[in-house]
Amino acid sequence: MKSFDTTLQEIYPIDPRWIDSARERQLELTKPPGSLGRLEELANRCAAIRESFELTTRRPRIVIFAADHGVCAEGISPYPQEVTAQMVLNFLRGGAAINAFARSGEIELKVVDVGVATPLPRSSELISRHVAPGTRNFCAEPAMTVAEMFQALEIGIELAGDSAMVGCDLLGFGEMGIGNTTSASAITAALTGQPVDAVVGCGAGADDAGIARKCSAVQRALDLHAENLRDPLGILRCVGGIEIAAMCGFCLGAAARRVPVVTDGFIATAAAAVAIRLAPAAAGYIFASHRSVEPGHSHLLAILGQQPLLDLGMRLGEGTGAALAIKLIQTAVAAFTGMATFASAGVTNK
Amino acid sequence: MKSFDTTLQEIYPIDPRWIDSARERQLELTKPPGSLGRLEELANRCAAIRESFELTTRRPRIVIFAADHGVCAEGISPYPQEVTAQMVLNFLRGGAAINAFARSGEIELKVVDVGVATPLPRSSELISRHVAPGTRNFCAEPAMTVAEMFQALEIGIELAGDSAMVGCDLLGFGEMGIGNTTSASAITAALTGQPVDAVVGCGAGADDAGIARKCSAVQRALDLHAENLRDPLGILRCVGGIEIAAMCGFCLGAAARRVPVVTDGFIATAAAAVAIRLAPAAAGYIFASHRSVEPGHSHLLAILGQQPLLDLGMRLGEGTGAALAIKLIQTAVAAFTGMATFASAGVTNK
Repeated sequence: MKSFDTTLQEIYPIDPRWIDSARERQLELTKPPGSLGRLEELANRCAAIRESFELTTRRPRIVIFAADHGVCAEGISPYPQEVTAQMVLNFLRGGAAINAFARSGEIELKVVDVGVATPLPRSSELISRHVAPGTRNFCAEPAMTVAEMFQALEIGIELAGDSAMVGCDLLGFGEMGIGNTTSASAITAALTGQPVDAVVGCGAGADDAGIARKCSAVQRALDLHAENLRDPLGILRCVGGIEIAAMCGFCLGAAARRVPVVTDGFIATAAAAVAIRLAPAAAGYIFASHRSVEPGHSHLLAILGQQPLLDLGMRLGEGTGAALAIKLIQTAVAAFTGMATFASAGVTNK
Repeated sequence: MKSFDTTLQEIYPIDPRWIDSARERQLELTKPPGSLGRLEELANRCAAIRESFELTTRRPRIVIFAADHGVCAEGISPYPQEVTAQMVLNFLRGGAAINAFARSGEIELKVVDVGVATPLPRSSELISRHVAPGTRNFCAEPAMTVAEMFQALEIGIELAGDSAMVGCDLLGFGEMGIGNTTSASAITAALTGQPVDAVVGCGAGADDAGIARKCSAVQRALDLHAENLRDPLGILRCVGGIEIAAMCGFCLGAAARRVPVVTDGFIATAAAAVAIRLAPAAAGYIFASHRSVEPGHSHLLAILGQQPLLDLGMRLGEGTGAALAIKLIQTAVAAFTGMATFASAGVTNK
């Protein structure tokens, strides 16, 4: 638990004076004031995170955390659990959407097995940090033990730290885990107090009967674990996922290392929301990428205190939303650092 | 007028059967059906434009058309007219926002002087296709002669054709011209019948008095030229801009060459809307990039029949919105062409 506790202590709020200074700097650049809209906010926040105007976004990296979910026993997903492992192999071979996104965006991709139930072949392309063969069915018992949860959190912290160490200036994260929208829905309900039907959606493609099974599973879990859902770690342990705990750790680790970190969709944002409940100052380091079609997502975004950058009707996960937002942040920083000033360019200011 | 007439005849509608085939193909790729949302629509439309699933987005290029506006005499811009030329020099030296965006996105940038009033130094970096030293003040007389308008249209057609010839698979366009939101507002009012106060905004930063002057100028122009505003070419000639006519030609040329072409903000979309009124089938080739803060923009987007991809509070022009959307289209195409199928990857479909 040492690195988890230390990490929480290392997260301190971004300094609003840096935001103000960056805003002043924006006014000197050869464009009408505020004309780059939200891209200016992105660059300003990056300046505050790095406490510098000499910003870089070198070696952008997305880490995908994969794990299985015991709650699949409740029939909550139209896909069999084996698909988690099959998709991990697809990531390793470069055939998934996120591989195409990462290639297109020149973003480095790392795949971590934190709890895939189906045995995976050894591969130098796969980071193996296997905590358990999936969570337990949280309709019957807590999803994780305390030890498993902290192990997963610390894996995320480790990966963020390693990424910072090798010079990744901009991080994103995503997930793969059949059944994990059900876990994210339970987390959302527990964190926000929203009723179950406001936080359960179709996930990877559940029909009406499937959505009813998801609602039932989430409600039973909330009832069963009610006593342990009063704090973020209790929520994470009882109804979370191993990959969700790892992503939560990844957010905390990135914030502690002062590296901007980009969320993905509903499940990734659930992890970010738990991180912010654990360390409110982490919010300054987290960038909401896109608005998922999942109905629970908006409630999580409220915890992040952000409107997402993109709203393209996506609901895939894998870090695909993060990949798109990383390009926007890189462009925002490129403008902030690469533009001429009115003075240097000899352009008349109004 | 030969190439203009020929170009109009060469534009034919994209084939909806290609959209349907692309949708079928999307279902085979390793992702839940429809989970990439609007990115799937982008790739499907590119497939229909190219009539192929072997899509590429090589050598993306943005062309910036620059020109001045006689209506500046009405005091409608807070910036002096010299800024148009100063910003062209800034483009050539790489110091403007679009330069940073293009570098970040690895997009080729071409700058064309079609009507900058201030003399520009000769430069191998500048494409000189000077039609006139800016438009006339359209509050007093038509902005362009018939000959000037066709010359500008044909310059746009030429640039699109040359871009297609050298292998640019994806095009965008933008503009620079102090005073050109006033022209775009007049075009919007004339094309859509919207009242002046619904189509005039703050542009590069007009205050309330400036906005009142813009409204007055637009209303006087609409009254003066009323008889000639019944067709798109009459609108373009009487209240348009040289760069707007060139961008209109660029859209038509891209559609005739069957190359996807991405709009920018308010002024660029005004040009695209005129192109669609001239050749409705061109709409299939045009992609709306972002929603500008300018109030008239929504009315133009209705002519395009599209929701823009991005809504980031931007209002800069220069092609900055096009640059961001080009990356989204490239990513969409990369997923469509680069992903494994359920069959090839051995992933269980539901």
